[in-house]
Amino acid sequence: MRKSALLALLLVSGVYSKDGSDKDLLEKARQFFSPLPKSFPSEENPITPEKVKLGRLLFFERRLSVNDMISCATCHAVEYYYASPAPKQMGALKLQPRHAPTVLNSAGQFVQHWIGNRKDVEDQALQSLTGPPALGNPSRESAEEKLKSIPAYVELFKKAFPKDKEPITAENIAKAIGAFERTLVTPSRFDEFLKGNTKALTEEEKKGLKTFIEVGCVSCHNGTLVGGTMYQKFGIYEPYWKYTKSESIDEGRYAVTKKEEDKYVFKVPPLRNVAMTPPYFPDGSVTSLEEAVWIMGKVQLGKDLSKQQVRYIVAFLKSLTGRLPEEARKPPILPP
Amino acid sequence: MRKSALLALLLVSGVYSKDGSDKDLLEKARQFFSPLPKSFPSEENPITPEKVKLGRLLFFERRLSVNDMISCATCHAVEYYYASPAPKQMGALKLQPRHAPTVLNSAGQFVQHWIGNRKDVEDQALQSLTGPPALGNPSRESAEEKLKSIPAYVELFKKAFPKDKEPITAENIAKAIGAFERTLVTPSRFDEFLKGNTKALTEEEKKGLKTFIEVGCVSCHNGTLVGGTMYQKFGIYEPYWKYTKSESIDEGRYAVTKKEEDKYVFKVPPLRNVAMTPPYFPDGSVTSLEEAVWIMGKVQLGKDLSKQQVRYIVAFLKSLTGRLPEEARKPPILPP
Repeated sequence: MRKSALLALLLVSGVYSKDGSDKDLLEKARQFFSPLPKSFPSEENPITPEKVKLGRLLFFERRLSVNDMISCATCHAVEYYYASPAPKQMGALKLQPRHAPTVLNSAGQFVQHWIGNRKDVEDQALQSLTGPPALGNPSRESAEEKLKSIPAYVELFKKAFPKDKEPITAENIAKAIGAFERTLVTPSRFDEFLKGNTKALTEEEKKGLKTFIEVGCVSCHNGTLVGGTMYQKFGIYEPYWKYTKSESIDEGRYAVTKKEEDKYVFKVPPLRNVAMTPPYFPDGSVTSLEEAVWIMGKVQLGKDLSKQQVRYIVAFLKSLTGRLPEEARKPPILPP
Repeated sequence: MRKSALLALLLVSGVYSKDGSDKDLLEKARQFFSPLPKSFPSEENPITPEKVKLGRLLFFERRLSVNDMISCATCHAVEYYYASPAPKQMGALKLQPRHAPTVLNSAGQFVQHWIGNRKDVEDQALQSLTGPPALGNPSRESAEEKLKSIPAYVELFKKAFPKDKEPITAENIAKAIGAFERTLVTPSRFDEFLKGNTKALTEEEKKGLKTFIEVGCVSCHNGTLVGGTMYQKFGIYEPYWKYTKSESIDEGRYAVTKKEEDKYVFKVPPLRNVAMTPPYFPDGSVTSLEEAVWIMGKVQLGKDLSKQQVRYIVAFLKSLTGRLPEEARKPPILPP
C-alpha cells in the first residue's frame, strides 16, 4: 500500500516516468529528430583519410591568411567547441558581420552561414580564402602560392589529390578542409535516446524535450541537427531587437535576395552543442542560454515561457552536448 | 689493412666518430649546456596542480581579453609550438611591436620579452592583461570582473588559492598562468646526449654541435635553454638590418634604459624548438632557419659560414625540438 502510494505521488509530481510515457516521448521525438550519422558524406567531395589529414592541418594553418594571423580555427576554436566566444570575431582584415558559429556537425546543414549565402562547407572554405573578414588573401592564387612554399604541403596535396597534375589549388584547399569538417560529428546522449535507450536522458532532460516539442520550438529546430534545415524570420511575434542586446539591426537574408519577404530571415541554427557555444543569435548579443531560450519563446512563439519551462528546455539542450572526436580535440603540430 | 684504411678515411672525413671524440664533445658541451629540468619552479609562485589546471584554462581563455578575441594561446599557439607564425601578431587592440616567441621553456629565462622588460612569466602575464597589443583590458579590475561572471572560475580560483578571501585577482590570474607555463618543458634528444647517451644525436647533429661551439654561437647561446641567459647587441660586426628583411630599425633595449650602450641590444633568445618556431629575429623578418643561422654568423661573429657549416648547425638545432607535454598538446574545453 505505502509503496503504491509513493509511486502514485511520484507519477503525479512527474519525478518518475512510467516506461509507457517514455516510449511515447521517444516515438514523438522520432517524428522530428534523427541520430547523427558517423560523417556527412558528399558526392562531389568524397571523404578520404588523406584529405581529412590535410584538411585538419589546413584548418589550423594561419599561413593560409594574408598576414599569417588567422586560420579557420581562430573563429572556430577547439577550446570553444569550434565556435567563437566573441559576439563578432576579427578576421584577417575586417570584423565579421555575424557571430561565427561552431563548425561541429555544420556539414549536415542545408546551407551554410547565418544568411545561407554559402552552399556547403567546401563553398564556405573556398570563399573564406579571400574574404576580408576571413583569411583575407588578395586572390586565390596568393593562398595557393603560400602553401606551395611549404615543402610538407606539396607532398600532402599530392597524396590527397593523386590524380591532379597541380594539386595545390584553391578548390582542393576547400575540398580538404571540407572533408575534415565532414568528419566533425559529435553524437551525444540524445542520439542514444533516439536510438531507443530511453534511460540515456534524465527525467529533467526528458521534460525539456517534451516542452521543446509541445511549446513549438520543434517546428523550426528539427532534423538531425535540431536545426539547420530551413530559413525562418527572426522575430515573428515581435521584432527580435526589442529583447536582444543588438547594437544594430541585421536584415538577414534580405542582403542576399533583396526580397521584402526575406527581411530578418535567417537560417535556423542547429542546436547541437548549443550549451557550449555562447554567445547566441546572429550578432552574439546574448550570452545566457536561459535568456536566449526565453527570448525565442517571446519573439518566435509569442509565449512568455515560465522559469521552469526555460529550465527544462535548457536541461534538454545540454543533452545535445556531444564529445569531440579524438582527432578534433588536439590541434595538429604544423610543418615549419 | 683495407679495413683500417677505410677507418682512417672515415675518421679524416669526419663521417665516423671514435667513441673518444664523442666523449670529448660531450665534455665540451657540458661546459656550456645543461639538460632541462622537469619544471621551472618559483619561490614566490609554487607550482601546484590546482594552479596549473586553472592556468591552463586561463591561457586559452579569450574572454580574458577586452573583446573576447585574444588569449595567450592566440600568440602562443599549440599548433605552432606555442609561438606565433606571424612576424608580428595582432593583439586585442594593437599590432605587437615584436615577434611573439614560444612560451615553451620560457620560464627558464633570466628575463622575459625580447628587450627584457618583463621580470618573469608571472610579470609577463600580469602586464598582458592590460597591454593593448596583448589582452587589452581597460583595467586589471575589468579582467577580474569578467572571470567573476563565469561560475566555473569562481570555484577553480577558490581551489587554486584556498587561503585568499577574494581569490579572483589579477595577481592570481598571473600566478595561475605562470604556474602552467612553468610546466611547459620540452626535453629533446639533446638532453639525452647531455645526460651521457652520446648515441642520442646523429653524426650530423654532433658535427653541428661541434660547429656551434667552435664558431662561437655558444658564447651567447648557452645554458639550459641554449639562450635566454644574457643580453647581447644584435649586429656586432655589421648592422643587422643589412641582412634581415626588417621594415624598420628596432633599437631594442634602448627603449627601456635610454642608455646609448643598449642600442640594438636584445635578450639572446633560447634556441629550444627553434626549428619549429619560425619566423626568426625580433621582427620575425626571416623565415628560413638556414638563412637565420647564416645571418647570425655574419653580423654576430663576423664570419661567412659555409653552406655545410650552416647545414650542420641547423641539424644540431633540429635536435633541440622536444615533445610537448601531453597536457599541452590539447587545449582544454573552456567553461561556457
